[in-house]
Amino acid sequence: MPYLMNPTYQRPTPIRICDKSEKDFLMAVEEFHGSLTPGLVLGGVMVDLGIELIESCSDLGAVVESACYLPDAVQLFTPCTVGNGQLTIRDWGKMAICLFDRKRHAGYRIWLDLRKTREVSSIYNWSMRLVPKRKRTADPVIQDILTAGRSVLSWRAVPITQQIPDTPAHVPIAVCPKCDEAYPETQGDICISCQGGSYYGITG
Amino acid sequence: MPYLMNPTYQRPTPIRICDKSEKDFLMAVEEFHGSLTPGLVLGGVMVDLGIELIESCSDLGAVVESACYLPDAVQLFTPCTVGNGQLTIRDWGKMAICLFDRKRHAGYRIWLDLRKTREVSSIYNWSMRLVPKRKRTADPVIQDILTAGRSVLSWRAVPITQQIPDTPAHVPIAVCPKCDEAYPETQGDICISCQGGSYYGITG
Repeated sequence: MPYLMNPTYQRPTPIRICDKSEKDFLMAVEEFHGSLTPGLVLGGVMVDLGIELIESCSDLGAVVESACYLPDAVQLFTPCTVGNGQLTIRDWGKMAICLFDRKRHAGYRIWLDLRKTREVSSIYNWSMRLVPKRKRTADPVIQDILTAGRSVLSWRAVPITQQIPDTPAHVPIAVCPKCDEAYPETQGDICISCQGGSYYGITG
Repeated sequence: MPYLMNPTYQRPTPIRICDKSEKDFLMAVEEFHGSLTPGLVLGGVMVDLGIELIESCSDLGAVVESACYLPDAVQLFTPCTVGNGQLTIRDWGKMAICLFDRKRHAGYRIWLDLRKTREVSSIYNWSMRLVPKRKRTADPVIQDILTAGRSVLSWRAVPITQQIPDTPAHVPIAVCPKCDEAYPETQGDICISCQGGSYYGITG
């Protein structure tokens, strides 16, 4: 990991992120996410570093510490998705990810290091939300993130100390007597939705 | 919607799902998710129906009522992803999705209708988890789901009655005095992670 060990290390040219050219990386991100945002691009840079740190891992898991942007970067460039259970989201609003070995319960946490962003005011201002929302997706910050690369990140080897994902994947199934749908019987005599927790109304 | 109105409607041949041939659909699913599972294929069939029901919608939102499989089907075949805020996950363990217009707060909920699966015992047994886990990803159920298509689904037009996503996207940011990372100040004087809620340990 020459870049991490040696502060004078020069980034390779042309820049590659997540095994793609910068252009292909940005295109892939925009196609999946629907737009290009600074958080998504920074997420890609984080994933790129994480993959290098963890090297070969046959049972990769990931945690993202924000529900915005970061999940998409991980889903695009690692085998971990929300739907396959390998990506866990902690909705903490922090610019940090963790890639870890699910067998060894150990991996690397990577975060945006505020002290390092003070050198790049546009990234600092973006991360502290000091820029009005409408300007936050402006190209200049994205370019500054691409130029800064890993220089604004820090990382640490960490053990995973909680069960991830949080809940057991398989629980007994019952049929809800109210809506006739299958649901995990741990929810109670009727499903959560019929208990009044639903997000939708019944019409017609 | 001839298929829904007319029970004798014959599915078009060759079958197309989410604007792809069956083969391309299965390949796309497997590439993103890492494996082919019945839930993922059924999710694709649900999304296919949902897109047809909602027709043109410039501001699409989605809710999935299971954290397994369904999020990936939605992310693959709609513009809604977890990271762009257009996909909301309700971890209720139900085989149901909702595609809705975020401006009109109205859309369609689609669910696996248990009564309809009784005709296809393999799908019923799979959905009630009556098949041991190791057999649940077997090809026969996937093929049965592809053959059954929409015939095992029901749907309903619904208003969206809760705020989705649940939390406001933008809150004031502070710097945690303990870890020096940026976090939403609504979490308290220090970030959730430093309050003891972390999933990782500090080593080295």
